[in-house]
Amino acid sequence: MDVCVVAIGDELLIGQVTDTNSGSIARMIAPEGWRVAGVEVCGDSAEDIRGAIGRAFSRANIVLTTGGLGPTKDDITKNVLMEIFGGELHEDAEVLENVRNIMARRGLEMNPLTAAQAMVPTSCEVIQNRLGTAPLMWFESDKGVLVAMPGVPFETTGMFESEVFPRLLNRFPSRKVITHRTLITTGISESALAGMLAGWEENLPDNMHLAYLPNAGYIRLRLDAKGDITERKAVETSADEAVAGMKEIIGEYIVAENDITPAEILLAESSAHDVTIATAESCTGGNIAGAITAVPGSSQCMAGGVVAYSNDVKIKLLGVSPDTLALKGAVSEEVAAQMAEGVCAATGADLGIATSGIAGPGGGTPDKPIGTVCIAVSYRGKTETVTMHFPGNRKRVVDRAVNFGLLSAVRMIREN
Amino acid sequence: MDVCVVAIGDELLIGQVTDTNSGSIARMIAPEGWRVAGVEVCGDSAEDIRGAIGRAFSRANIVLTTGGLGPTKDDITKNVLMEIFGGELHEDAEVLENVRNIMARRGLEMNPLTAAQAMVPTSCEVIQNRLGTAPLMWFESDKGVLVAMPGVPFETTGMFESEVFPRLLNRFPSRKVITHRTLITTGISESALAGMLAGWEENLPDNMHLAYLPNAGYIRLRLDAKGDITERKAVETSADEAVAGMKEIIGEYIVAENDITPAEILLAESSAHDVTIATAESCTGGNIAGAITAVPGSSQCMAGGVVAYSNDVKIKLLGVSPDTLALKGAVSEEVAAQMAEGVCAATGADLGIATSGIAGPGGGTPDKPIGTVCIAVSYRGKTETVTMHFPGNRKRVVDRAVNFGLLSAVRMIREN
Repeated sequence: MDVCVVAIGDELLIGQVTDTNSGSIARMIAPEGWRVAGVEVCGDSAEDIRGAIGRAFSRANIVLTTGGLGPTKDDITKNVLMEIFGGELHEDAEVLENVRNIMARRGLEMNPLTAAQAMVPTSCEVIQNRLGTAPLMWFESDKGVLVAMPGVPFETTGMFESEVFPRLLNRFPSRKVITHRTLITTGISESALAGMLAGWEENLPDNMHLAYLPNAGYIRLRLDAKGDITERKAVETSADEAVAGMKEIIGEYIVAENDITPAEILLAESSAHDVTIATAESCTGGNIAGAITAVPGSSQCMAGGVVAYSNDVKIKLLGVSPDTLALKGAVSEEVAAQMAEGVCAATGADLGIATSGIAGPGGGTPDKPIGTVCIAVSYRGKTETVTMHFPGNRKRVVDRAVNFGLLSAVRMIREN
Repeated sequence: MDVCVVAIGDELLIGQVTDTNSGSIARMIAPEGWRVAGVEVCGDSAEDIRGAIGRAFSRANIVLTTGGLGPTKDDITKNVLMEIFGGELHEDAEVLENVRNIMARRGLEMNPLTAAQAMVPTSCEVIQNRLGTAPLMWFESDKGVLVAMPGVPFETTGMFESEVFPRLLNRFPSRKVITHRTLITTGISESALAGMLAGWEENLPDNMHLAYLPNAGYIRLRLDAKGDITERKAVETSADEAVAGMKEIIGEYIVAENDITPAEILLAESSAHDVTIATAESCTGGNIAGAITAVPGSSQCMAGGVVAYSNDVKIKLLGVSPDTLALKGAVSEEVAAQMAEGVCAATGADLGIATSGIAGPGGGTPDKPIGTVCIAVSYRGKTETVTMHFPGNRKRVVDRAVNFGLLSAVRMIREN
């Protein structure tokens, strides 16, 4: 079943906020064989919203709008929806009660603007929003179904998963299944991978498709296999067989066999081998620790870390030698090694990941240009170091160094 | 001038990658009075790409495509562009040279797939890509101008800013100006702000518009003012006057007067008062340090920090008292205060920001439910603490705690 998403909001068009809702929706509906056929981002004007909804209905019977439902004056979505689906505004007592409860829970006062959220078109079925004040609205006509949802990602994804999608599945029982397999590779370029897999790809059946998804420091390979819902088992089996074929060809570059982040790969490996982790970060500034602790349950393996931005902190908290700093410079494999070993000593962790580098835009020298990052991993007494030259701006250099550090740690555990 | 963006890629539609290019483009063109009138995200099929480009040209004379130009088989954009603009593929020697250089610089081997990037339609003008292997292509017909750009954000934004937009400005000299003003507020809800500003908004002239943009822990108010390019000065002045009016009404909630992040606000304040910063993070796991160090030049103020996930690290590196941990628990204002003071002592920094809390999904208790975060700021010998209850999932709780901690530190510096 195809769905079109219309993401409403001037803040999206002018680039102050990024639409992540359409991607979240796509991920939630994929396991049922549904797909997002198109996403349009449109501004807060009636004309834009009307146009975008019209174009969406020309492509799919199900249109999901996100945003444009807040309490403030820049929200005119309800009026456009009444132009399309008819009806007039009336007060919904249950919504009013919900708004009142949420405001009370947040310690905020009710005011006329918040109360106005309880005014909903008579032409829709209201779905109560447990996570915020703006009610969800389900419209239906000969064009199809439109569900208007709030734009705050936490509310959109929470309510879509628990309320909207179950109702849509009930309304449009699915006939198709799509299954996805993801392999994560590192240490090889996209085109080199494609060259190795070219012959194998030629022989893929028509219901399968391989996509190359490069990330900072690794590449995800996503295989999709489609079929009728009655053939679910055969589709799953053929996808597994195709993955087995890929593994024979590019096995040495594969670091994980499902769609997980480098931090999740490291935590799975650490958990399996009872490894505790610590980080000692200079140029990555806490982002390796942040990536690890973003994973629920990471406290089982993560002891902690040090963000050692100044030399003083490198010396005081990590025991880096002032002589080495003077002789080799902060951005050196020697200092990175001492940072990794030092954070293990300071925290008692089994594994230490350290970075020291020049993320830019300032600080580059002819010897150590921007993008130079020294990475060290210390694991149960053994330390390995490497110097990388990452392309790109500050954020990109940091992202690559984070993923490289995490995946180097995975390799250290596996090889030792 | 209106621009439509077509973001191409199955990976965008299925939610594995988020389109950030359209937002970057919007931010870059806004100062010239240009705007992104619409964004469509479409899949990698010829039919989808053809449809999306057609819809885009029905709305604007300038269409920018991103993505769909990589070396691998899922990229078919060039063929669709030749259907629309004519021409046939020929090898461009300069592109081939560029691809060769980039591959050599990255230490990768040339292969037939990479070399194929040098095959470009005869109907376009090629813009050499300094940042990657896929060439940019400028097409022009009676429909208007289409520029096909790569999808990797680093390449897209870098090439758009340095090459594409200057050429577009030259081709379509601008007649309009839009100016933006942003105020950042904290400690007040969107609807309460809107209530306070309701009367003022009623009196806004037609060429001005106020948008409310809620973030985790703060709200951005964006005022847009439009006019003809000949009236640039008057437009700027009237926007400044409108902002002055807002400040009279909601001044006490304003923490910054331009569109900067909480970390940038703290760094500006710290820099102005010669303050060095350190972080001591439990539940935020390095994200406060990460937010600070994401800002270029942050090393001037940022000493470093400790990610103290385990109690052991809190005791060893931050000098937190084991008795306090036993008596009050790790999630307590007392422990947060000791962490903030301890990181100042350990690093010699003037300002310490500490967090200890329960981000979820596990770890909540009736006394300390998920979302409970104790935040402490220690500044030149004085320490303040607070316990917050943030709504939402793990990421949202962490994001709010990060911004709350940063903005609390700003307040501490300003008030002391």
